[in-house]
Amino acid sequence: MAFTYRYARPALTVDCVVLGLEASDADAELRVLLVKRGEAPFAGRWALPGGFVKVRDDGDQGESLDDAARRELVEETGVAIAHLEQLYTFGAPKRDPRGRVVSTAYLALVRPGDHLVTAGSDAAEADWFAVSGALDGTIALAFDHRAILTLAVTRLRAKVRYAPIGFHLLPKKFTLGHLHKLYEVCAGRPIDASNFHKKAAKVLVRTGVLQDTGEARRGRHRPAPRYRFDERAYERAVEGGFSFEI
Amino acid sequence: MAFTYRYARPALTVDCVVLGLEASDADAELRVLLVKRGEAPFAGRWALPGGFVKVRDDGDQGESLDDAARRELVEETGVAIAHLEQLYTFGAPKRDPRGRVVSTAYLALVRPGDHLVTAGSDAAEADWFAVSGALDGTIALAFDHRAILTLAVTRLRAKVRYAPIGFHLLPKKFTLGHLHKLYEVCAGRPIDASNFHKKAAKVLVRTGVLQDTGEARRGRHRPAPRYRFDERAYERAVEGGFSFEI
Repeated sequence: MAFTYRYARPALTVDCVVLGLEASDADAELRVLLVKRGEAPFAGRWALPGGFVKVRDDGDQGESLDDAARRELVEETGVAIAHLEQLYTFGAPKRDPRGRVVSTAYLALVRPGDHLVTAGSDAAEADWFAVSGALDGTIALAFDHRAILTLAVTRLRAKVRYAPIGFHLLPKKFTLGHLHKLYEVCAGRPIDASNFHKKAAKVLVRTGVLQDTGEARRGRHRPAPRYRFDERAYERAVEGGFSFEI
Repeated sequence: MAFTYRYARPALTVDCVVLGLEASDADAELRVLLVKRGEAPFAGRWALPGGFVKVRDDGDQGESLDDAARRELVEETGVAIAHLEQLYTFGAPKRDPRGRVVSTAYLALVRPGDHLVTAGSDAAEADWFAVSGALDGTIALAFDHRAILTLAVTRLRAKVRYAPIGFHLLPKKFTLGHLHKLYEVCAGRPIDASNFHKKAAKVLVRTGVLQDTGEARRGRHRPAPRYRFDERAYERAVEGGFSFEI
């Protein structure tokens, strides 16, 4: 069956920027989930997982953009994420050599360990890569996916200032040291540890976002208290009124 | 000429939420620029200015989404705005009775007095309306345009907390009283005037965003200093590091 239109129409795709934090006690790195394209154009290149939105020309009209993003992510990488945040729609002419393709990009933050990655659909491979390598060109990305990733990282860096982050990136229980490392990685710059600890204790504990679990992590020095996020306080803080200048 | 595709494709539109501040010394109101639809569907209803993105099926591929938004706004309302900020893409099935239509919404803040509104293209009329009336249903909007407007106002309210606002809404020279009224209107709630004056003096003057013009506005009471925005300091503050809890 073919569809005939009086005016040219764009193809519509979704692309997913899934960021995860790979953290040890010594170091932390922001990673991005990529797929190796199995088909032209850019066959063999790494790309953000994504694909065409299913559109129908009847009363049903097909799937929503959010549904398409979740579906494509599962099909290509095996990763199921309940909530993806819409990031931006990339609609510049010539961004796809095949013809006019407009893509709505989505962003999600996850703990990589929670998700088993398995390539599927038209992705030949799927894996985690250092965001730094994808941004500096060490890994060449297909289409304008480097620009999409750049915007996602910019959004994350802005978010650090007006919403708490980490709920979907850190383990259930963590120290302020872990949180400090996360903020450094997301902000993309060193943050004074002593100031950070003071402000985190003041802002995050006062607003109830951080709850002391009463357990302490034993290290070479004095035991560090372990915290957990209070989900409701976290969601309230994400929605408004929160400000965390670091 | 007709275009034939193997799979169904969506039509792609842009919609513009242009907000302006109507302010006297006594009161201030947030307004939105609307057009009366001259054609079905929703003929005779008020709607956000917007229309179809021009897509070509050749090497040129047509216009960008940003260009389409600027073009449609001028065609339908006569209002020319250099910078529109992309807000969100609305792509739910059945949002348009004609078939699958995905719309990218844009947001702009302007001084209504700077723009002469003249209806054109497929808009029968164009005018400014109180945002409150469009949100509470006093003015029934076409399509899902009330949801689009709601998101625009939510974005503006969030922005009040992490970026200075007013540069594109207030006259060139203004008092802290004007700015206070603007923040109340944008925040959608009363803000204690004395606290606001203190914080504005501290945060906005310290960062160089507000510059004292050395002129004072004469009123019944002591003269109120008149300020102007420093464009470069304002842009720096919009981009990052700024936080203004009120």
